[in-house]
Order: sequence, then C-alpha cells, then structure tokens
Amino acid sequence: MHTAWSVNGKLTGVDPRDRGLAYGDGLFETMAAAGGAIRWLDYHLERLVAGCERLAIPAPRDAELRREIAAQTPPRDRAVIKVIVTRGIGARGYRPPADAVPTVIVGAAPWPSAHSADPVALVTCATRLGENPHLAGLKHLCRLEHVLAQLELQKRGLDEGLLLSTSGHVVSATSNNVFAAFGARVCTPRLDRCGVRGVMRRLVLEACVPLGLVAQEVDLDVTDLTQADELFVTNSLFGVRPVCRLDDQTYAVGPVTRRLAARLGAIGSD
Amino acid sequence: MHTAWSVNGKLTGVDPRDRGLAYGDGLFETMAAAGGAIRWLDYHLERLVAGCERLAIPAPRDAELRREIAAQTPPRDRAVIKVIVTRGIGARGYRPPADAVPTVIVGAAPWPSAHSADPVALVTCATRLGENPHLAGLKHLCRLEHVLAQLELQKRGLDEGLLLSTSGHVVSATSNNVFAAFGARVCTPRLDRCGVRGVMRRLVLEACVPLGLVAQEVDLDVTDLTQADELFVTNSLFGVRPVCRLDDQTYAVGPVTRRLAARLGAIGSD
Repeated sequence: MHTAWSVNGKLTGVDPRDRGLAYGDGLFETMAAAGGAIRWLDYHLERLVAGCERLAIPAPRDAELRREIAAQTPPRDRAVIKVIVTRGIGARGYRPPADAVPTVIVGAAPWPSAHSADPVALVTCATRLGENPHLAGLKHLCRLEHVLAQLELQKRGLDEGLLLSTSGHVVSATSNNVFAAFGARVCTPRLDRCGVRGVMRRLVLEACVPLGLVAQEVDLDVTDLTQADELFVTNSLFGVRPVCRLDDQTYAVGPVTRRLAARLGAIGSD
Repeated sequence: MHTAWSVNGKLTGVDPRDRGLAYGDGLFETMAAAGGAIRWLDYHLERLVAGCERLAIPAPRDAELRREIAAQTPPRDRAVIKVIVTRGIGARGYRPPADAVPTVIVGAAPWPSAHSADPVALVTCATRLGENPHLAGLKHLCRLEHVLAQLELQKRGLDEGLLLSTSGHVVSATSNNVFAAFGARVCTPRLDRCGVRGVMRRLVLEACVPLGLVAQEVDLDVTDLTQADELFVTNSLFGVRPVCRLDDQTYAVGPVTRRLAARLGAIGSD
C-alpha cells in the first residue's frame, strides 16, 4: 500500500509555522479511490474551493491540485485519498498574512477494513457541537469536538455516534451525515449553525428527485428521529448505510435506504 | 534572531499525519522570554499539562519539555516562545490512537514591535465564538473563529477586537482576556462555555487580593462594559494594558489598571 504524503509536491514534513497546525486554519477532503480514479472528485474539489473562498484562503490552482492527487492515487487498489489545504506559513498571531501562499498536502491511506454495507448502531454523544454560522458546513481542520466525541465512543466500545448542537438540534453522526425518512420524505439537518455538508449528503439530496423522493433540509430533534421510518448515514467512503439502532430504539432497513444505497454505495461494495 | 523550530527535539518538519494538523488535536502556549528565562513558565506548563489531561493527551515529560524550551530560548534578547503539544501521529479518522505519543514543537519568534504600554482600541467583532463547555478555557489548536475575527479587523484597519459568544456574552478580546473594573471590583468573564483562560488572567485574579481589590469571574454583557469605570486587557506578552475605546465609547486609564499593570507589566516594558 502506497503511504507517502506530499507537501506542496515534495516528500517532506510540514513547516511547524504552518497555520493549519497552529490554528486549524485550513480545510480537508477525504475521498474514495479505486482503479486509479477518485470517486466524485469534481464535487470534492468544488467544496474545497468554496471553503477556501469562505475562509479567504487563496485556492490552489485546479490543475496542480489534480496533478498532486493523481500522483498519490494508487493505480489499482481501493484507497482513501486525503487532501489538506491550509493558509500556509504565517508569522505568529491569528492575523492571516496578506500574501498567504496555501499549503497543499496530499496522502493516501489504506481502505478501511469495516464492511461498508453493515448497518450502523448509533448512540447520542454527550459531546455537543458549538454553533457558528460562519463556519457551518465547512470541512475545516478544527475538529476537537469530533475527537472528544470519539473518545467518548471508544470508552463505550462503539464506532459512530449521533452529534447534537449545543442548542439540542441533530447535526450529524461523528463521521457521517444523517438522514431520516418519513415515508417518501427524506430529511437531513440543514447545517446552518454547525456540521459538515458532506459530498455524499449532496449526492443523496440530488438523487432523491429522480427516485421520486422528496428531499428536505430541516431542523431535526432527537424526538423527530424516533418517529422516522428509516434512518441512514452517508459519507464519501461508504456511500449510504442503514442505521439499525439509535440509543434504545431499533430501525429496520427500509426501501428508501435500499434504493439510495444501491445508487450511491461504496466503490466495489459487496 | 533565533528562528529555528524543533519537532520532538529535531530540526525537522511535522509529519503530515500529525493530528494537530489534521484535527486541531492539541494545545499551545505563547510565552515571553528575556535574558534566557521564560516569564511565568510554571504557570504555562501547569496549564499545558491540565489541558492535556482534559483532552486525554499523554502529557510530555516535564524535564523534556523544559529542556526543549531552554534549547530554543535566545540567551539575551526578548522573544516569544511558542510550544505546541499535539496527540501525535495517528491513523486516518477522528478516533485517537490508543497508544498516542505526543508531538512537542517548540520555536522562538521575534518580540512584537507594538509598544506594550499603549492603550488598546477595541471594536466588537461580528464573528462570535461557538460554545462548548468541554473545550472552554483550553488553549487548544482550533482557532478558526479567531482567524475569522482577525480577517474582520484587518478590513477595518484594527488590531484587536472584542469577542462575544453565540449567546451574546462577552468572552475576551481576540488575543487577550478582558477585565472590567467597577470601583474596586474587578470582573472578567467566567469562560465556562468558551474562551481561553489566560495565564495573565490568572495572575491578575491572584494579584487583586494583595492590592485590596475584589476579583470576580462573572457573566458580562456588552452593556455591563459600557457601565465600567475602567476596561483593560491581558496577555502573557504585554501583561496588563488599558482599553481606551470600545466601539463608540471611550475610557480613561484608571487607578486599578495602573496598579495591576505596574505589578504585571511586560518584560522590560517601558
């Protein structure tokens, strides 16, 4: 398995003054690769560039980014390709340099061993997500809340949890977006105060129309989830996966989840 | 000026898989050095170790940390010494490795050119701080909100702003804690939902007692600040500095600020 990383195209370490390390001042993408190609690459790059715009980080040139990604993508095997873009090296202090030159870090990691079609059991995490509309939706590098949630899950022997915002709304799972189906109505949190707008979340919202489903971004509370016919989670690696349990409640795998999973499953999923 | 950085005692780059970069999974300290010594070093290290405990990061050994810091501290000139401790290298994903080995990064930066005794003008930032009691008080690496606040200030040609929480309480200035004096009563936000508990903030709270002042950690709103007799800000580099203006309101430099500044001023401040 190819495990090298490149930093600005060189096989080297990251400058300790990089603002990505110092302040979480950057963004990342986690992408599925197989047969030398990245799945949904255009959507990932679109989100990355949109994130750079919102943070006023100069976006790396598209051709360079694609070249770096191609250089790290193994020719055959499934792999996880990660791209980090930071605001680059800066002087001490929060103030961004006027002439920021972004750092682009690209690396490959082995495909996870978890079975992609397995239903997921969720528990509601005590760790909640702070709300900030200016950062909501972005896949930025400030993820300590997710790390604390994972510490909590680790103690309970679980892999994935449900995350609420500090005001008590449902946001997402720890490494996935979350959807609730009420008949043919497919609802997901609107993510205007926190959370990450996943690429697979976007694909699911787009896929609903041709499948005759009604997609809605709404405010969801835990009690709404208890009334759902189906729950499922989504991310770029595993596509659509059914939720079989949330805390004390169990859910059957339903037709909406099956149809979306068939359309948007993981690469080479079995 | 000595500008080298060390990563785990070596003059090298940071591993791109380091969780400090990937997720902001770490802490930092910014300290004032002069004549080869670090001011308030014990307090900084105490906060760093307490932060490691709260994040379940194995704390680096005290003797090693002090040795690394001493190695980067210039023998004579004033300098800013920065220490970053991260959870170290991890596999992909938010879940912390069971056997985390922390990364210790130490570097020196030139002393800032700003005049330390100058009164500070503040404006209230539109960027607010998300609330998370689990992270409140920590000087962790997830600082994108502070970066966004600085982008805002940069556009307005200012250096320092007042930060409110998303629920509208006063938290701090962008790179300082904030205090309001009402007669001999010295109040600062309690920071139980967000914000950084600064070393100089602690020193001010401790210094109040021998000076016959009453220190209080309270909830403060902007309207409370408009009724204060004096406002001042604190950090480890500049000690105590008077605030001369907050938005449209001006403040005179008062006796409480003068007495605390005299006791806790910057190294070699003039």
